[in-house]
Amino acid sequence: MMALNIIILAAGKGTRMHSNTPKVLHEIGGQSILAHVINCAKALNPSKIIVVYGYGGEFVREAFPHENISWVNQAEQLGTGHAVQQALPFLDADAQSLVMLGDVPLVDVAACKTLIEQANTKLAILSFNKADPAGYGRILRADNQNVTAIVEHKDATAAQRNIVEVNTGIMAMPNSHLTKWLSQLTNNNAQGEYYLTDIVALAVQQGVEVVAEITDDEWSVTGINSKTDLSTIERVYQKRTAEKLLLQGVTLKDPARLDVRGSLSCGRDVEIDVNCVFEGNVTLSDNVKIAANCVIKNATIKAGVQIAPFTHIDDTEIGENSRIGPFARLRPGTKLAADTHIGNFVELKNSQVDVGSKINHLSYVGDTTVGKQVNIGAGTITCNYDGANKFRTVIEDGAFIGSDSQLVAPVTIGKNATIAAGSTITRDAPADALTFCRAKEQKTIVGWKRPVKIKK
Amino acid sequence: MMALNIIILAAGKGTRMHSNTPKVLHEIGGQSILAHVINCAKALNPSKIIVVYGYGGEFVREAFPHENISWVNQAEQLGTGHAVQQALPFLDADAQSLVMLGDVPLVDVAACKTLIEQANTKLAILSFNKADPAGYGRILRADNQNVTAIVEHKDATAAQRNIVEVNTGIMAMPNSHLTKWLSQLTNNNAQGEYYLTDIVALAVQQGVEVVAEITDDEWSVTGINSKTDLSTIERVYQKRTAEKLLLQGVTLKDPARLDVRGSLSCGRDVEIDVNCVFEGNVTLSDNVKIAANCVIKNATIKAGVQIAPFTHIDDTEIGENSRIGPFARLRPGTKLAADTHIGNFVELKNSQVDVGSKINHLSYVGDTTVGKQVNIGAGTITCNYDGANKFRTVIEDGAFIGSDSQLVAPVTIGKNATIAAGSTITRDAPADALTFCRAKEQKTIVGWKRPVKIKK
Amino acid sequence: MMALNIIILAAGKGTRMHSNTPKVLHEIGGQSILAHVINCAKALNPSKIIVVYGYGGEFVREAFPHENISWVNQAEQLGTGHAVQQALPFLDADAQSLVMLGDVPLVDVAACKTLIEQANTKLAILSFNKADPAGYGRILRADNQNVTAIVEHKDATAAQRNIVEVNTGIMAMPNSHLTKWLSQLTNNNAQGEYYLTDIVALAVQQGVEVVAEITDDEWSVTGINSKTDLSTIERVYQKRTAEKLLLQGVTLKDPARLDVRGSLSCGRDVEIDVNCVFEGNVTLSDNVKIAANCVIKNATIKAGVQIAPFTHIDDTEIGENSRIGPFARLRPGTKLAADTHIGNFVELKNSQVDVGSKINHLSYVGDTTVGKQVNIGAGTITCNYDGANKFRTVIEDGAFIGSDSQLVAPVTIGKNATIAAGSTITRDAPADALTFCRAKEQKTIVGWKRPVKIKK
Repeated sequence: MMALNIIILAAGKGTRMHSNTPKVLHEIGGQSILAHVINCAKALNPSKIIVVYGYGGEFVREAFPHENISWVNQAEQLGTGHAVQQALPFLDADAQSLVMLGDVPLVDVAACKTLIEQANTKLAILSFNKADPAGYGRILRADNQNVTAIVEHKDATAAQRNIVEVNTGIMAMPNSHLTKWLSQLTNNNAQGEYYLTDIVALAVQQGVEVVAEITDDEWSVTGINSKTDLSTIERVYQKRTAEKLLLQGVTLKDPARLDVRGSLSCGRDVEIDVNCVFEGNVTLSDNVKIAANCVIKNATIKAGVQIAPFTHIDDTEIGENSRIGPFARLRPGTKLAADTHIGNFVELKNSQVDVGSKINHLSYVGDTTVGKQVNIGAGTITCNYDGANKFRTVIEDGAFIGSDSQLVAPVTIGKNATIAAGSTITRDAPADALTFCRAKEQKTIVGWKRPVKIKK
Repeated sequence: MMALNIIILAAGKGTRMHSNTPKVLHEIGGQSILAHVINCAKALNPSKIIVVYGYGGEFVREAFPHENISWVNQAEQLGTGHAVQQALPFLDADAQSLVMLGDVPLVDVAACKTLIEQANTKLAILSFNKADPAGYGRILRADNQNVTAIVEHKDATAAQRNIVEVNTGIMAMPNSHLTKWLSQLTNNNAQGEYYLTDIVALAVQQGVEVVAEITDDEWSVTGINSKTDLSTIERVYQKRTAEKLLLQGVTLKDPARLDVRGSLSCGRDVEIDVNCVFEGNVTLSDNVKIAANCVIKNATIKAGVQIAPFTHIDDTEIGENSRIGPFARLRPGTKLAADTHIGNFVELKNSQVDVGSKINHLSYVGDTTVGKQVNIGAGTITCNYDGANKFRTVIEDGAFIGSDSQLVAPVTIGKNATIAAGSTITRDAPADALTFCRAKEQKTIVGWKRPVKIKK
Repeated sequence: MMALNIIILAAGKGTRMHSNTPKVLHEIGGQSILAHVINCAKALNPSKIIVVYGYGGEFVREAFPHENISWVNQAEQLGTGHAVQQALPFLDADAQSLVMLGDVPLVDVAACKTLIEQANTKLAILSFNKADPAGYGRILRADNQNVTAIVEHKDATAAQRNIVEVNTGIMAMPNSHLTKWLSQLTNNNAQGEYYLTDIVALAVQQGVEVVAEITDDEWSVTGINSKTDLSTIERVYQKRTAEKLLLQGVTLKDPARLDVRGSLSCGRDVEIDVNCVFEGNVTLSDNVKIAANCVIKNATIKAGVQIAPFTHIDDTEIGENSRIGPFARLRPGTKLAADTHIGNFVELKNSQVDVGSKINHLSYVGDTTVGKQVNIGAGTITCNYDGANKFRTVIEDGAFIGSDSQLVAPVTIGKNATIAAGSTITRDAPADALTFCRAKEQKTIVGWKRPVKIKK
C-alpha cells in the first residue's frame, strides 16, 4: 500500500456562523468539527496529516496542541485548489493524498478507504445522490461508468441538471499526479479562484482514470456553514450515538432527548431516562439507572448505582449501589465509596466518602474526608474556607453529625463521635463522645408581643 | 358467544435486548410489556388466560402475583407451534382460543374482537399491510378473499413477494380445530421448529374457512425484540397518551416531551409544561398548572394548585390553590392542605401541613405535623432522627419558626409560639410566647486580623 | 392607498378546547392567539381594528386594555357573514376591509398585504393548496384565472373535489361592495347561518373581479380549534423562533427543545443548551452561555455570563462575566453587578449584589444590599421577615460572612467586617472587626451513650 498524506482544508471563515470562533472549532458532540475530521484522518493511518488553516488560524492550531499535524497557513482565500497548493511542500513524492474537508464532521472512515484503495493510480472522488441537487457540481460518467467531468450547477445543461449524483469535494489521488495538476490549475473563472475540482478535467485530458464512489450517507459528506447546519448535524450525531447505545442494550426512555458530548461507556442493563446530558468521559457500569434531567460530566459510576432526577455531577467517582439525588451536586474531586447516600440539596466538593455513609439533606461538604457508616445530618456545613485558605475536615468512621452543625476546618471528628445539632465545632471532637457547642439553656419569654405591621 | 381461552406466548429470550431481565418484563409507559398484553386480554373477558413462559420464567410469574393466570413453562424453545402445544392441557374443549404475543404491548382490544367474533367456526388471523414486507409471512387470498395460505418470505415467489399483506402471528380459532391441528404440526423444516402458522395450511386442507382481518395500526402488532424497538414503542405509547390528554382538553406545551408511566387523570383547564414525567397514579384537578421539568409520582393534586419548575413529588397529596416549588421535593407521606406554600430547596417527608402554612426556603421538615397559618423560616431543620429512632415534631397553629432553627424531635411548638432565629429547640415551646436558645450576647473583637494566605 | 379597516372574527366558543378560557385567549409562544392576530393587524397600519367577540367576551376585551380596538359583540353565533355584519356600524365608507380570523395566530403580514393591494376594487381572497382538501371550500377559477366561485366540500362535484386550492377565510374588499354584499346574504342553507364566503358569488354575479392569492405557508392560515391544534401550532411557532435565532448566529444544542414565550434578544456567540425556557423579555448579550434546563423570565444578562444547569431566573439583571448556578434561583428585584458568583441552592430576592461578590452555597439572601468583594458563606440566611414586616440587610464592601450565620434585619454588616460561622447577628456589626454570637465553649461529654433503637 502506498503511503498516505491527508490534506484537511480548514481555512474557511464561515461568515454565516456569525461567530468570532473559527468555523471548524465549533462543536459537535462536545468536540470541535475539525477534531472529528482529524480523528477520521488518524483512523486511516496516514504518514502525514496536513491542515490548511486560514481564518482564526492561531486559535485553530492551539486547539490541537498534542496532535502530530503539519499546519499550513493559507493567507489568502483563493479557492480550494489554492488551498491544496499550500500543502504542496509537505507532500511525499511517492505517496498518495486524500483531500478532506475540515467542516464535514461526520466524514466516514470506510468511505475514505474506498477512495484510498483506488488512488494508487486513479483519481477517486466521493459522490452522493442528492434528492435536490441544485447548486452542486454534477458527476458526469461515460458508458464505462468512469467519470468524465464534474460540471458546476451554473454551467450545467438542462439534461445535466437532471443528474442527481453530485461531488462531495473529498477525493484521493497519487501525489505524482496531484503535484502536476495543481501546477496546471488556472483561476480563469468568474470568481477568479483556483478550484480543486478542475483536476478532474485535467485527469481526463491526460488519460488518468477517474472514478467516483457513491456514499449513501449524505450526513457523512455534509459540511457546516451556519448555526442551522451546526444544530442539524448535532442532532444527527446525537441520534446516531443513541442508536449505538440502544444496539448495545442500553435502555433509553427517549433517544431524541439524550446528549452525549464525549464518550459514554455503558455496562449491561443500564437505563437512562429522558433529557440527560453526558459530557467528557462517563462510564456507567452494570445496572446503573440515571433518572430524568441529569447532567453528568467526567464520571465513573459503578454497578447498581441509582441517580435520581436533577442531579449534577462533575469529575466524580461513585461506588457500587450508591443512591444519589435528587437535586444533588457532586463537584470535582468527589469520590464516593459503595453504598453511600447523597440526598437533596447537597453539595460535595473534593471530598471522599467511605462505605455506607449518608449525607441526605441540605449540606455543603467540601475538602472533607468522611469515614465509613457516617451520618451527616441535614443542614451541615463544612467551613473549609477562612477567606484566604482552604482546610480539610476529617470525619472518622461511625460519626454522627447532628443537623445544622458547622465544622470549622481544620478539624477532626473522632470515630463514633456524636455532634449535637446546631453546634459550631472549631476544635477536634473526641471519639466515642458527645460534643456540642451551643447556648446553655432554652428560654422562653412569656407575654412577648409579636411584631405588628408597621404603618407606612 | 363461545367461551374464550387466551394463550399468550411469552417464552422468548430476547437475546437482542442484551439484558438479564426477561424480554417481556421490560417496560413501556411504566408497565411491563407483558402487563400490557394481559390487560388487553382481560378486556376481552376470557374464561382463562394461559401464559406460556420460558426464559427467566420465575421472574415473569412473580411479576404478576395477583393475576388469575395459568402459567405454562415451555422448557425448550421449539417454535410457536410447540409453545401453543404446552397450553393444550389448559384449553377448554368447547371454547375458542385467541393466541396473543407477549412482546406486542400495544395490541388492540377492538382488533382482537374482530378475530374472536369469527373464531367460533373459522380460523381468523390478524394481518396488516406493510410498506416494506421483506421478511414477513405473506397472506395469500383466493378470489373469494378467504386466506389460502401464509407463505414465508424465504419460500415466496417473486409475485408473492409483491404482496404487502403480512401475518401478525395473532389469531383465533375453535379449540376443537386447534387441538387437532397442533397434533398434526411437524418440525420438518430448516430450523427444525414447530410453526403455529402451519395450521393455516391444515385448515385449508381440511376445508375450514380461514379469514384475515387487516388492521391499519401497525404499532398495535409490532413486537419488541431490541432496545431500539423498546424505545420506539415507548415513544409511540407516549405520543398516544399525549394525544388522548389533548383530546380531553389538557394543554401540553410539547406533546413530544411528556412521559406518563402509569395513569394521569386530569380535570378541566389543566396545563402541563415541557419535559414533565408522571409515574404511578397521578390526579390533577381543575386548573392545575405544572411547570417545566417536574417529576411527579403517585400524587393527588387538588384544584388550582401551581407547581413551579424543577419540583419532585412522590406519594403526596396537595390541597387546593397551593403553591409548590421551584426546586421543592415532597417525599412519601406528605399531605398538604389548601393554600400551603412550599418553596425552593425545601424537602418534606412524612409531614402533614395544614391550611395556609408556608415553608418557603431551604428547609427539611420530616415526620412533622404542621398546623394552620404556620410560617417556617428559611433554613429550618427538624431533627427527627437520633441515629437510631425517628421522632415526630408538632408545630401548632399560628406558630412562627425563626430562620435556621433546629427542632429536635420529639418536640411540640405551641399555638402562636414564636421561635427566635438560630435556636436549637430541644424542649417543648409554650404557646403564645417567644422561645429561644442561643448565645446571650453578640460580641465584637476589634483589631482582629483576618487570616492571610498561607505560603506553601 | 385606500384607508384600511380590519375586522377580526373572534367570537367562536371553541367547544373542542374543553376550557373555561375563551378560545382566542389561549396562548402560543406566551401570547394569546388573538394578540398574535392583533399584532399582525397593527403591522398593516389600519385606520381601525374591529374585533367581533362573543363567547367569554368580557374576558377577551379585558385582555387588551391598552389596544385601540373597536369591540363588537356578536350576541348570537349566526355564521361568519353575520359576524361581519356586526362590524358594519364601524366601517368607514370609503375604506377597504380586511377580514382576519381571531384563531389563526401565525397569520402572515406579507400575505395580508397582497390582498390589501388588490382590494381597492376587487374581492381578494387568501387561499392555499391543501394536500388533503376534504372538508374545505374549493376555489374555482375561470380560464383567465379569476375566481368564479368557492364551492363547499359537501356541495362539490367529484371533479371539484379534486381541486386542492382551498379557501382560508381571510379576504379583503372595498367597503362599498362589502356593505352591499352583507345586506344581500341569506341564511337559506342547511345550518341556517349567514356565510361570508357567499359574497364571492355575489361579486361574480355583479361583475366584480375576484382574485385568490395562494400562500404556500399552510401554518399561517391554520386555525386553532382544539388543544391538539394548540400544541401543534405552539411547536410550529417555537420551531420558527429557533430557526430565526439560528440564522442570527445563536448556537442551539437542540432547536426542538427551546421554548421562547415572549422576546429573546441575543448578542454574538450566545449558546443555549437543551431544554431551556424563556419567558417575557429576555436579553442575552455577547458570549452568554445558558446551560441545559434553565427557566429564565424577564432578565437582562450581560456579556460573558455563564448560567449553569437548573437555574431559575425571574425579573433579574446579571452583570458581565458573572457565574450563576447550578440550582440557583434569582427572584424578582435581583440585580447582580459584574463578576458575581451565585452558586447552588441559593435563593436571591429583591437583593442587589455588587462587583465580585460571591454567594456560593445554600443561602437565602432577601431584601439585601451586598457590597463589592463580599463573601457570603454556605448556609447564610437573611432573616428579612419578622412575621409582619420585611426589613433590609446591608452588607458592606469586603465583608466575610461565616457559614450558617443568620443576619436578622434590619442590620448592617460593616466594611471588611468578619462574621464568625454560626452567628445570629441581631445588631450592626462594625467594620474591620470580627463579630460573633455563639456559645462560649465547645464541650464534650465523655462516656455519653448513643440512643438505641426503641423496641415497639
